[in-house]
Amino acid sequence: MTTQFVSQDAHAAKTPSEVEVGSVGVVHTQFLQFHEPLPLSSGQTINSYELAIETYGTLNAEASNAVLVCHALNASHHVAGRAADNPEDIGWWDNLVGPGKPVDTNVFFVIGINNLGSCFGSTGPASIRPETGEPWGAAFPVLTVEDWVRAQARVADKLGIQRFAAVMGGSLGGMQALSWAITLPERVAHCVVVASTPKLSAQNIAFNEVARRAIITDPEFHGGNYYAHKTVPRSGLSVARMVGHITYLSDDDMAEKFGRTQREPAAGGAFHYGYGVEFEVESYLRYQGEKFSRYFDANTYLLITRALDYFDPARTTDGDLAKALAPATADFLLISFTTDWRFAPARSREIVQALLKNEQAATYAEIDAPHGHDAFLLDDARYHGLMRAYFLRIAATLTGVTTQLGVQR
Amino acid sequence: MTTQFVSQDAHAAKTPSEVEVGSVGVVHTQFLQFHEPLPLSSGQTINSYELAIETYGTLNAEASNAVLVCHALNASHHVAGRAADNPEDIGWWDNLVGPGKPVDTNVFFVIGINNLGSCFGSTGPASIRPETGEPWGAAFPVLTVEDWVRAQARVADKLGIQRFAAVMGGSLGGMQALSWAITLPERVAHCVVVASTPKLSAQNIAFNEVARRAIITDPEFHGGNYYAHKTVPRSGLSVARMVGHITYLSDDDMAEKFGRTQREPAAGGAFHYGYGVEFEVESYLRYQGEKFSRYFDANTYLLITRALDYFDPARTTDGDLAKALAPATADFLLISFTTDWRFAPARSREIVQALLKNEQAATYAEIDAPHGHDAFLLDDARYHGLMRAYFLRIAATLTGVTTQLGVQR
Repeated sequence: MTTQFVSQDAHAAKTPSEVEVGSVGVVHTQFLQFHEPLPLSSGQTINSYELAIETYGTLNAEASNAVLVCHALNASHHVAGRAADNPEDIGWWDNLVGPGKPVDTNVFFVIGINNLGSCFGSTGPASIRPETGEPWGAAFPVLTVEDWVRAQARVADKLGIQRFAAVMGGSLGGMQALSWAITLPERVAHCVVVASTPKLSAQNIAFNEVARRAIITDPEFHGGNYYAHKTVPRSGLSVARMVGHITYLSDDDMAEKFGRTQREPAAGGAFHYGYGVEFEVESYLRYQGEKFSRYFDANTYLLITRALDYFDPARTTDGDLAKALAPATADFLLISFTTDWRFAPARSREIVQALLKNEQAATYAEIDAPHGHDAFLLDDARYHGLMRAYFLRIAATLTGVTTQLGVQR
Repeated sequence: MTTQFVSQDAHAAKTPSEVEVGSVGVVHTQFLQFHEPLPLSSGQTINSYELAIETYGTLNAEASNAVLVCHALNASHHVAGRAADNPEDIGWWDNLVGPGKPVDTNVFFVIGINNLGSCFGSTGPASIRPETGEPWGAAFPVLTVEDWVRAQARVADKLGIQRFAAVMGGSLGGMQALSWAITLPERVAHCVVVASTPKLSAQNIAFNEVARRAIITDPEFHGGNYYAHKTVPRSGLSVARMVGHITYLSDDDMAEKFGRTQREPAAGGAFHYGYGVEFEVESYLRYQGEKFSRYFDANTYLLITRALDYFDPARTTDGDLAKALAPATADFLLISFTTDWRFAPARSREIVQALLKNEQAATYAEIDAPHGHDAFLLDDARYHGLMRAYFLRIAATLTGVTTQLGVQR
C-alpha cells in the first residue's frame, strides 16, 4: 500500500505517515454552488443551491476512472475516511471504498454527493431560502430520484467527468444508480445496484407512511415550519426511525442480537410490569430513535421517504420494466441479500429479468447473509469479494491504470 | 337448521323467524361482577371488577359442551351474531361460530369474554376505580395472559363449567388457550391454537414498542391520565394501529389489495408531490388508524401489547417449551397460515415439536392462505373445514349430543 493516491481534496498539509493504511484518511467536505435553476419532476424549480461532496482518489487525465456513490435515506456524501471536523465520524461505506479496498481509491476517483434536500450540508428544508431569508421548511419542493440524478450530473459537469466508470449505490442509492443508467445512459459505463428494488411495494410505502404520520402528527412539527418555532418534532422522528430500523434488520438478526433478553430486570430476573424499557430490543430501538432525532431533519425524512415512494421507472412504460431499462447501455451488477425483507432478492431479480429480456449485460448475485437490508453496509467476505472482482474488471478497461493494478491486495 | 339452539341469553322476546339461519342472531352482552380480589402476576391485586361476556348455544346438563373463545388485541367478547345495541356489529368470529358453522352452536355452548383491561365493557383503565371515583388511567395494573386465564376461570366457575370441551383462540387468543392448557389442565379437554406463537420474537416486541412509543409520546397521553384532561392520544393511537395493521397483512396481500394504485391522482395521473394521501395504501392505513383511535382505549393498547410481550410459558422452565407444556392433558389443534409473517408457521411448529416431544396429542395444519396473520379471521374453506372436522370429533365425545350431530351441514 502506498500513500500516493490519498483523497485529493485535503491532504496537502498531511505527511504520508498521517494517512492510515487502507483508509482514505481524513477528508474535508467541499461545497459546490449552483446558480442555474434546476427544473424538478414536480414542475417546480430550485433557482440556486449548494451541494456538499467528498472525493477520494485522483481523477485520471482521461477523466475515465470516476465512480459516483449514491447514498440512501440517512447517509450522506461522507462515504469513506474520517471527517475532518469529527475524526470519530467514519464514512458509511468506508469498508468498501479506500486504497486497496474493493472500490480501490488507488485506481478510482470516488465521489460522494449529499443529495439535494438532505440535511448534511446540501441545500434542504432546513437551509435558508435566499428569496425569504427564512428556512425553506414546508416550502421546500418534494424531490424525486430523477431530480437527484439531474443535480448529481451537474456535479459531474463541474468536475469534468463526462462518463462515470461506475455509478453505484445501495437501497435508495441503488435506485439512483438505476436512474442514471436509464436517464443518462451515455454517462454510465457500469451500474452497480445493491439491495434495491425497481419500485416500492405497498408494504414499503405503508411503512414510510407510518413514519411520515408519526412526524406530521407530532405537534412540534408545526406543518413543517418548526424551525421558526425553535423546536423539532423529535418524538415523531424518533418513532419514524424506530419503525424504519425494524425493516433494516432481519427477524433472525434481531433474534440473534436481542432475543428476549431483559434490560436491567427486577430482582430475581422479574419483569417490572410497566411501559418503561423491559427488553434489550426496546432499549436499542429507543436509543436509535432518540439519537437519530437529534441529528436528522424531519422534513428531510419526509422528502426522502416520498422520493422512495415515487421511484418507479416503469411508470412511464406502462409498467414494463424491460422497456424502461432499454435505453441503458451500462453493464449492470446487481446484488441482493437473502434475509433482506425490505427489498428482498425477488425485487432485484425483477431488474435482472428485465435486463436479460433486453439482452443487456447483467451480473447478479444473491448473497447468503443474515443481516437483512443492512447487509449492504456490512463487511461480508463474499459480498466484498464480488465487488472487488467486479471493480477489478472495470479497472482493467481503463486506460493508464494497468500498472496500478499491481498494488491491489 | 333449527332455531332451538339460539343464544340463550336474550331471545325470550324473539320469534323463531327473527333468528337468521346460520347465525346466532341478535345477542346481548351480559355483565358479571367479581368481588373476590384477583391476584395478578405483577404482585398487585384487583379487588373487584366486571367482565362483559356473550354466550351462544345452550349449556348441556352435564356442562360438558362449553367452548371458551379467547380474543386477540382489538377484539372482544362479541364473537358471533349481531350486537343488540348495534345490529351492524357482527361478531369477529361469526364466520366460525354459529348454528351449523364449524364451531356449531347447535352442539356447543360458546362463551366470549372481554378480557380484563380491555375497553369493550370489562373493567379496564378507562373504568372508574371504586377506591377513588376516578378512571384508573395509568394506575391500572399491567396484566399478563396468565392473569386473564385466572379471570376467565372465575367466569367458568360462575357458569358452572368445570371443564371446557375446548378453549380456543387466534393470535393472542391462542396464547390464552395455551396458558389454559398449561395452568389449568384439568379444565381443558381440547386446546385450539390458531396463528399463534409460544412467545414474541424480538421483532414482534419491537413493533409493539414502536406502537407504545407513538402513544406514550403523544402529548395528549398525559402519562396515561388523559381521561382527566378530557382528551385522547388519537394521533399516537392511530400510528400504533397503522404499524400493527401492516403486520397483520401479508406483503403479497397488500400488493394485491393496493399495489401502487394512486388515490385521486392529479391531472393525467400525475403525483401531487406532497405529503398528503398519494397512494391507496396510505388512504387505507390512515382510515384504519383514525377509525381505531375513535373507539379503542390507548391504555388498553399499551396493556395488551405488554401482555403479548410478556407471554412466554417456557420462561419458568429455562426456555424448555416441552417442559412448560408437560402439565397439559388436553388434545391440541394447531393451525398456522403460510403468509403470516407476524406469527409465522415456524412459531406454531415450535409448539407442535414440543408437544410431540412430550408424546402429547397434537394435530397441526399449515394452511396455504394469502392473507397473512389476518387469515385466522377469514373464511377459508380448508381452514374452516379442518375446524369443522375437529369440532365434530369433539362433539362425538360428548354425552347426549349424538342425535344433534344429524343437523350438521
